[in-house]
Amino acid sequence: TQQLLTGLTPRFKPFRVANADRSVRKGIVADGLRDLLNKVSDAMHVPCASALVLDEDGTGVDTEEFFHTLQDNTVFMVLEKGQKWTPPQNAPHHEH
Amino acid sequence: TQQLLTGLTPRFKPFRVANADRSVRKGIVADGLRDLLNKVSDAMHVPCASALVLDEDGTGVDTEEFFHTLQDNTVFMVLEKGQKWTPPQNAPHHEH
Repeated sequence: TQQLLTGLTPRFKPFRVANADRSVRKGIVADGLRDLLNKVSDAMHVPCASALVLDEDGTGVDTEEFFHTLQDNTVFMVLEKGQKWTPPQNAPHHEH
Repeated sequence: TQQLLTGLTPRFKPFRVANADRSVRKGIVADGLRDLLNKVSDAMHVPCASALVLDEDGTGVDTEEFFHTLQDNTVFMVLEKGQKWTPPQNAPHHEH
């Protein structure tokens, strides 16, 4: 039963996703990277999302493994083909 | 069972890796330096990576021992032969 409790159930977590110019930001719950990408495409009208990157530093999130290390309410930016991450203006002071 | 929980499982940790001109940054999970180097080569299309250095100050990370002292989400730069680390421009102030 220990295994059942820790490993096998999908774990839905809340995330926040901005578009490339940060004019729209949505809260989205997902249990994996693929799930998040699907939901972002629908919710944010980005039919051809090419990448999800971290809003804070533009780190590309390409794998489920890395995705699952992220904390609740991590802020993503969704990029379409040709769009690039840019640093936030008036970047807040990040502490970790 | 205590042993199983604490000692023997590989410890996968998240890292962030930039290329030499900092135009690309990826999140990568690895359980050791060799594993990270392999995954960086694939994910960042750097078939002949020659070194992993710390993005913040160019410190070369050559040993598993030092690697395992690094915190989650440490930022690396991958260098190919002939490439050199350069200081970040307008580096934001990071605290950990």
